[in-house]
Amino acid sequence: MPSLNSATRDKLKAVSTATLCTALFKRGLRNQFIQDVHPVNTQRDPKAPNMVGEAFTLRYIPAREDLNPITVFQDRAHPQRKAVESCPPGAVFVIDSRKNARAASAGSILVTRLMKRGVAGIVTDGGFRDSPEIAQLPFPAYHQRPSAPTNLTLHQALDIDVPIGCGDVAVWPGDVVVGDGEGVVVVPARIADEIADEALEMTAFEDFVTERVQAGQSILGLYPATDERNREAFAAWRRANGR
Amino acid sequence: MPSLNSATRDKLKAVSTATLCTALFKRGLRNQFIQDVHPVNTQRDPKAPNMVGEAFTLRYIPAREDLNPITVFQDRAHPQRKAVESCPPGAVFVIDSRKNARAASAGSILVTRLMKRGVAGIVTDGGFRDSPEIAQLPFPAYHQRPSAPTNLTLHQALDIDVPIGCGDVAVWPGDVVVGDGEGVVVVPARIADEIADEALEMTAFEDFVTERVQAGQSILGLYPATDERNREAFAAWRRANGR
Amino acid sequence: MPSLNSATRDKLKAVSTATLCTALFKRGLRNQFIQDVHPVNTQRDPKAPNMVGEAFTLRYIPAREDLNPITVFQDRAHPQRKAVESCPPGAVFVIDSRKNARAASAGSILVTRLMKRGVAGIVTDGGFRDSPEIAQLPFPAYHQRPSAPTNLTLHQALDIDVPIGCGDVAVWPGDVVVGDGEGVVVVPARIADEIADEALEMTAFEDFVTERVQAGQSILGLYPATDERNREAFAAWRRANGR
Amino acid sequence: MPSLNSATRDKLKAVSTATLCTALFKRGLRNQFIQDVHPVNTQRDPKAPNMVGEAFTLRYIPAREDLNPITVFQDRAHPQRKAVESCPPGAVFVIDSRKNARAASAGSILVTRLMKRGVAGIVTDGGFRDSPEIAQLPFPAYHQRPSAPTNLTLHQALDIDVPIGCGDVAVWPGDVVVGDGEGVVVVPARIADEIADEALEMTAFEDFVTERVQAGQSILGLYPATDERNREAFAAWRRANGR
Amino acid sequence: MPSLNSATRDKLKAVSTATLCTALFKRGLRNQFIQDVHPVNTQRDPKAPNMVGEAFTLRYIPAREDLNPITVFQDRAHPQRKAVESCPPGAVFVIDSRKNARAASAGSILVTRLMKRGVAGIVTDGGFRDSPEIAQLPFPAYHQRPSAPTNLTLHQALDIDVPIGCGDVAVWPGDVVVGDGEGVVVVPARIADEIADEALEMTAFEDFVTERVQAGQSILGLYPATDERNREAFAAWRRANGR
Amino acid sequence: MPSLNSATRDKLKAVSTATLCTALFKRGLRNQFIQDVHPVNTQRDPKAPNMVGEAFTLRYIPAREDLNPITVFQDRAHPQRKAVESCPPGAVFVIDSRKNARAASAGSILVTRLMKRGVAGIVTDGGFRDSPEIAQLPFPAYHQRPSAPTNLTLHQALDIDVPIGCGDVAVWPGDVVVGDGEGVVVVPARIADEIADEALEMTAFEDFVTERVQAGQSILGLYPATDERNREAFAAWRRANGR
Repeated sequence: MPSLNSATRDKLKAVSTATLCTALFKRGLRNQFIQDVHPVNTQRDPKAPNMVGEAFTLRYIPAREDLNPITVFQDRAHPQRKAVESCPPGAVFVIDSRKNARAASAGSILVTRLMKRGVAGIVTDGGFRDSPEIAQLPFPAYHQRPSAPTNLTLHQALDIDVPIGCGDVAVWPGDVVVGDGEGVVVVPARIADEIADEALEMTAFEDFVTERVQAGQSILGLYPATDERNREAFAAWRRANGR
Repeated sequence: MPSLNSATRDKLKAVSTATLCTALFKRGLRNQFIQDVHPVNTQRDPKAPNMVGEAFTLRYIPAREDLNPITVFQDRAHPQRKAVESCPPGAVFVIDSRKNARAASAGSILVTRLMKRGVAGIVTDGGFRDSPEIAQLPFPAYHQRPSAPTNLTLHQALDIDVPIGCGDVAVWPGDVVVGDGEGVVVVPARIADEIADEALEMTAFEDFVTERVQAGQSILGLYPATDERNREAFAAWRRANGR
Repeated sequence: MPSLNSATRDKLKAVSTATLCTALFKRGLRNQFIQDVHPVNTQRDPKAPNMVGEAFTLRYIPAREDLNPITVFQDRAHPQRKAVESCPPGAVFVIDSRKNARAASAGSILVTRLMKRGVAGIVTDGGFRDSPEIAQLPFPAYHQRPSAPTNLTLHQALDIDVPIGCGDVAVWPGDVVVGDGEGVVVVPARIADEIADEALEMTAFEDFVTERVQAGQSILGLYPATDERNREAFAAWRRANGR
Repeated sequence: MPSLNSATRDKLKAVSTATLCTALFKRGLRNQFIQDVHPVNTQRDPKAPNMVGEAFTLRYIPAREDLNPITVFQDRAHPQRKAVESCPPGAVFVIDSRKNARAASAGSILVTRLMKRGVAGIVTDGGFRDSPEIAQLPFPAYHQRPSAPTNLTLHQALDIDVPIGCGDVAVWPGDVVVGDGEGVVVVPARIADEIADEALEMTAFEDFVTERVQAGQSILGLYPATDERNREAFAAWRRANGR
Repeated sequence: MPSLNSATRDKLKAVSTATLCTALFKRGLRNQFIQDVHPVNTQRDPKAPNMVGEAFTLRYIPAREDLNPITVFQDRAHPQRKAVESCPPGAVFVIDSRKNARAASAGSILVTRLMKRGVAGIVTDGGFRDSPEIAQLPFPAYHQRPSAPTNLTLHQALDIDVPIGCGDVAVWPGDVVVGDGEGVVVVPARIADEIADEALEMTAFEDFVTERVQAGQSILGLYPATDERNREAFAAWRRANGR
Repeated sequence: MPSLNSATRDKLKAVSTATLCTALFKRGLRNQFIQDVHPVNTQRDPKAPNMVGEAFTLRYIPAREDLNPITVFQDRAHPQRKAVESCPPGAVFVIDSRKNARAASAGSILVTRLMKRGVAGIVTDGGFRDSPEIAQLPFPAYHQRPSAPTNLTLHQALDIDVPIGCGDVAVWPGDVVVGDGEGVVVVPARIADEIADEALEMTAFEDFVTERVQAGQSILGLYPATDERNREAFAAWRRANGR
């Protein structure tokens, strides 16, 4: 797995998932935004930095009743518990719940443990239980919707750190996962650095455009900057703003 | 209908729907959490006590146009209006809207009336109209999503206090309905007392575990407490905290 | 297109979408509430006036990859960009996204431009990107859910100001679009004045009823006012409150 | 319940559900076709007469595990079994399965018993088990899709012959239920006779139009017959064909 | 619109929609198969030639009740009726029904008229009424599922021969529409000739491979023919079979 | 993996998936029927023996565009192709397609190869391409619906013979998969023998009951046989019929 360097991590903290999706789209990657997954904390501060980290995955399959009594958690090697204790600090914990939020993917105790272990955040395409508590934690968590039933009701934890699907997106271990107030995007590990660079450039331009539009300028010729004067104005703006 | 005693009611106000779901799961009841139903007030105080009460039900079927002109409400015996005036104080009013939120299940005037009558809360697997007003009321209300069209558009109120389905859960009159910030769970009347007791015990343990995890302890051997030292620590914690 | 007069506009700013749906229902129009579309700003002030304006529409069809490279936006005549610059001030910009929120309908720069141009609001039955920024703008915006991927991923902008479907509702250019904290309703242009009048009357009555219900009165005979004494009390209330 | 007379029954055997839907639409009834319900026998003879009978209903709610062990069927009063033995000959047995086909509504033995008792047909908005056997029976059966799990898995039989919803349609006991190769329509009891008459007239006209179109005539002025000559031709056709 | 030449038409009659999808995929077109649309005739002869023709489109929006009484069909210029009479012989009539099969897109009389006029086939992403009759016609028709209610219930016919969406696919007038027993694919007009050529070549190879696999050969090295001996065997097979 | 003995295989060929579901239900296994999966051959002979075999699985995740060009199949180790060549004769090939039928899970050439290799059948919770050809093969194949696009469009083949989900059911390698005209059920390997025995007994009883019901007997006391005389009659029937 190519390691996520700290410069790239910092850049990815400061760009939006929307901008990242466009940078990926330009490279033919049209399907990297995790569908129908939202911050658990619906009052999230819009100025908060993004969740950024390499994907560490957990795969669920449907639960069969005889294999999933409440006693399975007495096994320290149970994959859900083992995954929580082995996810590397700085990584994002991503769960393939087959888009099924009718039972929980995890609850506040496990999420708190991940937070304390220095994990960067957690994502499921199912739902979390104890979601009001999770929403209060200073820790990024993303799911489809709250779900109180224990995961054993419908989910059997199986594999740790294998390629999975999450919200219709392929997640390969080590891919860089970025979350903001809008949702979560998966950046393939191989291109994370160049995508971060490009997205940072795009963000500068978008901030410039936003300023101009707020000042009353038309988007025609400005966004994109097909008009030469707007390209000059942007160059001046960059100098003036040190970006 | 076994009557809900006040001790059980108080216990159920202080435990989470997630904990209740696990207690029910242990008894083979895997399907008691009402699916895809959420607090109308999305800024609900996470410290607020739960909604707790015995289920009082209203059943809707699809509306046929000729039977549902606006004038039907002139009939004082119309089941929706009659149900609102006859729901016992302390009960939870639960509507079977067939999971259809394309028209409203009820609006703010009826919900206000229920509140004034001392009803404990209201739940529908459809949607409420006047939802911004309902969100402001000091009264628990749960639905799928806001829906402005009058209920006559798609719903015919039919039966009062019969067994119904709500969000894929069986709701029998007198079942104990509990709602928190996560959603709503239905506890069969017959086992409400024992479930309340067990959930209170579980909550003490979960609070203990949360403290330890916040303090940096691993979940292995702690959650569940397969390690003897953790069981001893929990016993000490209970004594120290009077729980 | 019948022009929306300012008296009607003011009335429509002060009534709820729920009340409008009932007034439309009385005229046999049962399907004017845009389904599953919500304010982008989930912390919207419930006292804020409604979004009101005549519909100005944009139609999307599915995007074909070869017709939708990122370079299409260099064309000043691209329908999405052209629509943003030609939507009349005071109108509501309504997008037919075929209920598909897997890619964005538009982002914050275009929405900001609409705001600066004096447009009254924007509605899509898909999703917006940059939704956290849009939520902060003093501008009404309604969508299904946030969606970061660029619209080119799935949407081809095609037609400007033609009749469309939005959230299963027919939207004809010039129809009056009203949005509150609950959602968005479409009032046919031809009957906008009479609907506004009737809804204002209904709102007075509902406010009266709400007061009485808050004061402890039963809804029977009051809502609707089949009891003569309630009709008299309402008349007195109107005089006392100047409504 | 107004009794279905044999003349009306015979007429309804000979007209299509499509024609009936149009006759109902003319009276403002837009929602009488049971959605997403199909003949179990996918090789049904298109010339077979329609299923026609008065609705006899069975209502299911979600099954709770402790109330639905396999042993419940030892009770002769179990509503599913009792309903099968009490449905009147000539009636159509209609089940409200909440559109849930993940477990069966009934199986071939019960369906065979209904057939032998002279019942006119069976409809569920869920699925049947033993569907290959049911498809072979000379008995009309309609469902959403095959479903092998026993009904106890998800369905609790509750009420017999009450108003229900089936495939989003209101079904009142005694309504006239008509099924052809396309699906099932519910005709309110009160207007069954006049709808049957009108549909028979419409069918004669449609047969005439089909003949003309097969002979190469344009539909303009013919369907509907706004052209006087086509009305004359139809009158002549009726005389010639004795209809 | 580039005209579909008869050589290309003949080639497209003899290749499968699956093969065409692969040829389109190689050119970056991943989304040309109309989703969830099936032959009305479920007993279609698998040896029947494909439906092939240029797209002629009809666009529906949601119906508003006051604009869609049954009397609208008395207008000869009603877009649905006008479209049926103006669709060119040899074209495929494609309807954008917004994937809504709860009311019909058209019925047997209009479909028969299209057949008599020499149209090549009809496709909707909604449903047809009179589907048992349509299934008996010697005319290709594709839909989602049968639907008896008149189109006026939910669909307002609006535009003729404009770009539309159908089953999540962009359909531009003049695109070449091909249907077999599996479903319907849309080939952009500009590349129809080259796609037809390539698909014919691919079909020869697939037929060769099928013969070899039926004779017991492994697919490794054969499909695709990475093994030189298989390429030679294919060359020999082509000579022997004149393909 | 416990090996499936031939006696059990033979028994399972002769009982229905409905009967198996009931036997599993009695053991607390409520979720073993693969949801929304149907025989590709819709004209399947209802007398044909069941598909029976041990599960051999293939896991798909969402396809990322850069990892899934058409050239990947040139790799003999591509998991889809390798799986087809390594599935044991007598096994059932089960694919986890995440219930996504928008692109194919496999096509006729691979299915033919499996057939020639002696595999017992194939199941996907997505769709097959070349489905008309597959329907003609003397080989059991089950899917959700036909789907022409190549699997590379949406599916990345990843793992061979690992536990998967298929149609919301857990499938562990070696589980016994049984398919009839209704659909597919998964019997856990450990209990396959006893389930087969019990289902065979149940089938004898159901055949007896069906005969009696066809002869006009009521189901009360017969199904289940709570009436002693019916138990005696069944015993006599068994002797007479050698079962």
